[in-house]
Amino acid sequence: MSLVVKMNGGQNMNGNGVHHVSVRTHLSVNPAKLKSLRQRWNVKPSEMSKKTLNPIRAIVDGMTLTPNPEKPMIALSIGDPSVFGNLPTDDSVLQALKEAIDSQKYNGYAPSVGYQKSREAVANFYSCPEAPLEGKDVILASGCSQAIELAITVLGQYFSPTPGFSLYKTLAVSMGIQVKHYNLLPEKSWEIDLQHMESLIDDKTTCLIVNNPSNPCGSMFSKEHQQNILSVASRNCIPILADEIYGDMVFPGCDFQSLAPLSSDVPILSCGGLAKRWLVPGWRMGWILIHDRNDIFGSEIREGLVKLSQRILGPCTVIQGALESILNHTPPEFYQSTVNFLKSNSEICFSELSTVSGLNPVMPSGAMYIMVGIEMEHFPEFQNDVEFTERLVTEQSVFCLPATAFEYPDFFRIVVTVPEEMMIEACIRIREFCARHYRPRSQDSHDLDQ
Amino acid sequence: MSLVVKMNGGQNMNGNGVHHVSVRTHLSVNPAKLKSLRQRWNVKPSEMSKKTLNPIRAIVDGMTLTPNPEKPMIALSIGDPSVFGNLPTDDSVLQALKEAIDSQKYNGYAPSVGYQKSREAVANFYSCPEAPLEGKDVILASGCSQAIELAITVLGQYFSPTPGFSLYKTLAVSMGIQVKHYNLLPEKSWEIDLQHMESLIDDKTTCLIVNNPSNPCGSMFSKEHQQNILSVASRNCIPILADEIYGDMVFPGCDFQSLAPLSSDVPILSCGGLAKRWLVPGWRMGWILIHDRNDIFGSEIREGLVKLSQRILGPCTVIQGALESILNHTPPEFYQSTVNFLKSNSEICFSELSTVSGLNPVMPSGAMYIMVGIEMEHFPEFQNDVEFTERLVTEQSVFCLPATAFEYPDFFRIVVTVPEEMMIEACIRIREFCARHYRPRSQDSHDLDQ
Repeated sequence: MSLVVKMNGGQNMNGNGVHHVSVRTHLSVNPAKLKSLRQRWNVKPSEMSKKTLNPIRAIVDGMTLTPNPEKPMIALSIGDPSVFGNLPTDDSVLQALKEAIDSQKYNGYAPSVGYQKSREAVANFYSCPEAPLEGKDVILASGCSQAIELAITVLGQYFSPTPGFSLYKTLAVSMGIQVKHYNLLPEKSWEIDLQHMESLIDDKTTCLIVNNPSNPCGSMFSKEHQQNILSVASRNCIPILADEIYGDMVFPGCDFQSLAPLSSDVPILSCGGLAKRWLVPGWRMGWILIHDRNDIFGSEIREGLVKLSQRILGPCTVIQGALESILNHTPPEFYQSTVNFLKSNSEICFSELSTVSGLNPVMPSGAMYIMVGIEMEHFPEFQNDVEFTERLVTEQSVFCLPATAFEYPDFFRIVVTVPEEMMIEACIRIREFCARHYRPRSQDSHDLDQ
Repeated sequence: MSLVVKMNGGQNMNGNGVHHVSVRTHLSVNPAKLKSLRQRWNVKPSEMSKKTLNPIRAIVDGMTLTPNPEKPMIALSIGDPSVFGNLPTDDSVLQALKEAIDSQKYNGYAPSVGYQKSREAVANFYSCPEAPLEGKDVILASGCSQAIELAITVLGQYFSPTPGFSLYKTLAVSMGIQVKHYNLLPEKSWEIDLQHMESLIDDKTTCLIVNNPSNPCGSMFSKEHQQNILSVASRNCIPILADEIYGDMVFPGCDFQSLAPLSSDVPILSCGGLAKRWLVPGWRMGWILIHDRNDIFGSEIREGLVKLSQRILGPCTVIQGALESILNHTPPEFYQSTVNFLKSNSEICFSELSTVSGLNPVMPSGAMYIMVGIEMEHFPEFQNDVEFTERLVTEQSVFCLPATAFEYPDFFRIVVTVPEEMMIEACIRIREFCARHYRPRSQDSHDLDQ
C-alpha cells in the first residue's frame, strides 16, 4: 500500500495560479475499509427537518375524521377568512395590485428588507406621536409567519402564551431555541397570568412573545393590562415580540391599542401583515416594526434582521408595489363591515353555546376565534378534547380544532368567519351533540368515589 | 428570609382544573442577588443571525465606490435582468397574473407546499419520459433561494462549487452545516474538477450541489460531463442538489440538458423558478423537483421538505394561481428573443475583452454572466480583484463584481443583461482602464528577483 500526497497547482488559465492551489490527498488504503464508508444509499433528513413539527397537523393527522354522510360538513377549524367566499377582500386592494403589475416596475429584485417606498408606506401607516416610525424601522417579510421567524431568530430564547399560536413552538423547537409557556387566564378574558410569567424569567430569557389580539382566544388586552405587561418586561429588561397580526381587527366598541406607544423603555418588534385585516393571507405580505426609541436594540439587532432577510430575499415584489395604495386607499367601510360581521357571528355563537350544558364559551373581542371550554367530567365517554371533537365530526359533521393543538386541553377553538347560516347550523348541531352525551354529576360514580 | 413554594391550581372556569395546574416557586432571596440577574438592558442578536453573512454584501460594503463624476455609472454587477427595462417579461405573463387576481380564487392560504394544481402544472412542464414527475414531486417555495434553503436544510452537509453562488455558503454557515468547496476549471469552460470533488468526499458528506448553467460562470455542462458527475455521486451514494434556475436559459445552438433524466440511480432535488427564464425575479416563485425514481429519498426526505415548508407557508398565492398559464402560454419567441440577446451581448463583451492585454474572459454558453480573469502580475498597482474593480469605478464609472465574492479571486464577473450600447461603452472603458494600468513583465523587477 502506498501513500501519495500530491500538490496540485491547478491549471490556471492566466498563469499566476496563486489562488487555485488545492491540496489533494490520495490515500491508497484497504479497499474494504474504503468501501465501508458508503456502500449503499442511506439518505436521511437533517435533524432540523425532523425537529420541525406543526402541532396542529400532528394532532389533526392523528384524528379519525369521518363526517356523518347525512349531514354536509361544516369546518369551523380553518383560520382563513377567504375560504367560504363570504369575506372577499376589497376591490380597491385587487385594483392596487393590478396597477402595480401594469406599471412593470415591480418585477425585479427588491432589497431583501423590501422597497424603501413600501417600507415608508408601512411606517407612515403605523406611526404615531408616541411611537414614531420611519422606513428604516420596517422590515418586510414573506407573510407574518416569516416576520415572526426573523424576530424569533434574532432575539433567541423566549416565552410564549398558552394557549397560543402553534408557530411559536414550531420555530423554537426546529431551531433548538428554548421556549417556556406562560398561562393565559380564561376567567379574566384570557389576560396573561403576569405572576406566572414573571416567575419563569431567568437569566437566559431574551424575549417575551405577546400576541394581542389573540389566536386562538379572540381576546384583546386592556390598556392597563398592556401597561402591566410592559412593567414586567421593563423590570426584567426583556424585549417583547408583539404579534399584532390581528391588530385593529377588533369588534366595534373595542379600541385596539398596540403595545409600542405604551412603552417608555421596552424595545419591541411588532409583527403584522396584510393577511387578516385585508383578508389576503395567501399573498404572504408581512412586516416587522422596530420600536426602539431608546436605542436598546441598537444597530446589532437591526443588522441581524437585515442579514437574516437575505436568506430568501423578502416578499413578492408586485404585492410590495401595491402596498402603499392598499394601506392608504382601502375604504374604512371595508374594515367596519368585516369587524361588524365577526362580532355578529361571535355573538350568535357565544349566545347559542353559553346555554349548552357542559360548554363554557369565552366571548371574544376581536380576531376571528372563540375558545369554548368543555366540562370533561360531564362527557365521560370522551377522554379529552381530541376525542370530543373527533366524535363531533363523526356524528354531526362539524369540525372544531381541539385546543390540545394550542397546548390547552379541554377546550376547542371555533373560527367565526363562516357564513352566518353555517354558524347557526353548526351551533344547533353542537347543542344536539352535547345533549346526547352530557351526563349530569353521576350519583353512582360519586358513591364509588367515597 | 423565607422560602415559599406554592401550588397553584389556577382558577379554571370550568372547575376540573386538571390541565391548568402550574407549579410556581416564589423564592425570597437576597435582593442584591436577584437584581444581578438582569439589572440593565443588554439585547444581543442570536448566534445564527450573527453567523448569517452575505459574502457579496460583505465585500461590496467594504469597497470605496466613488464613480468618476464625468462618466455616467454603468453597473455590470447586478444579477437582475429587469433593472434596465430592456428585458421586460412577456405580456402574457402579466396577463396571466391579472387573471389570477380577477378570479379571486387565490387570496387565501394555499397548502404550504403550494396548490396541487400549480404543483401539477410545474410537474407537467418539466416531466419527461426518462424522469417523469407528478404533482407530489413538486414543492413550491418563495423563490429559488427558499427552494435551495429547504433542500440544503433537509439534506445537510454538502459540497458546492468554487466559484459559486454565494447563497450556498451563507445558508450553510448560518445553520452550522459544514460546507466544502470543489473547484471548477476555467480552462475547461468551468467543468467540475471531478478528481478534486471525489477526493473531498467522506462519510459525513450528504449532498453535492451542482449548479448548471452556472452563476457566476455562465457555463453549461456537456451531457458527457454531467454523466461523469452522476458517476461520482452514484459510486459514493451521495444525492445531488441541482441548482437549475438558469435551465433552458442557454444560447441558441447549446442544448441544455437537465441532470435528472441522465441519472439512473442518483436521487436529485432540482431547484428552479420563474426568476430568470421568465425575467421576474422579484415575484419569488421557486420550486423543488423531487427526482427519486428508485425511492432512495423515500418518504422521509419528502416529509422533511413538507415540514420545513410549513415554517413560512409557501409562495404568494396569486403568483401560484397564474403559474399554469405562465408555463403553458408564454410564447416560445419570448424565450428565443431573450437568449438571442444574451448571446449577442456576451459575444460583444467576449470579443472586446479578449483583445485587452491582461484580461482573460471565458466565453459563456448561457445564464447571464461572463467571468473575466485578471493577470494580476501585469497590474502591479492593485493587490487583488477587489482593488482592481474598485479603481475601475473611480476612474471609469464601471462596476463589475470582484470574484472574491464567489471565493475566486483574480477574476471579475460581468452581467450581460444590460442594453447593448451600455455593454459596448463599458468594454471601451475597461479597455482604456487596462491600457493605462497594464505593465508588461518588468525587466527591473525581474532583475531584483534574481
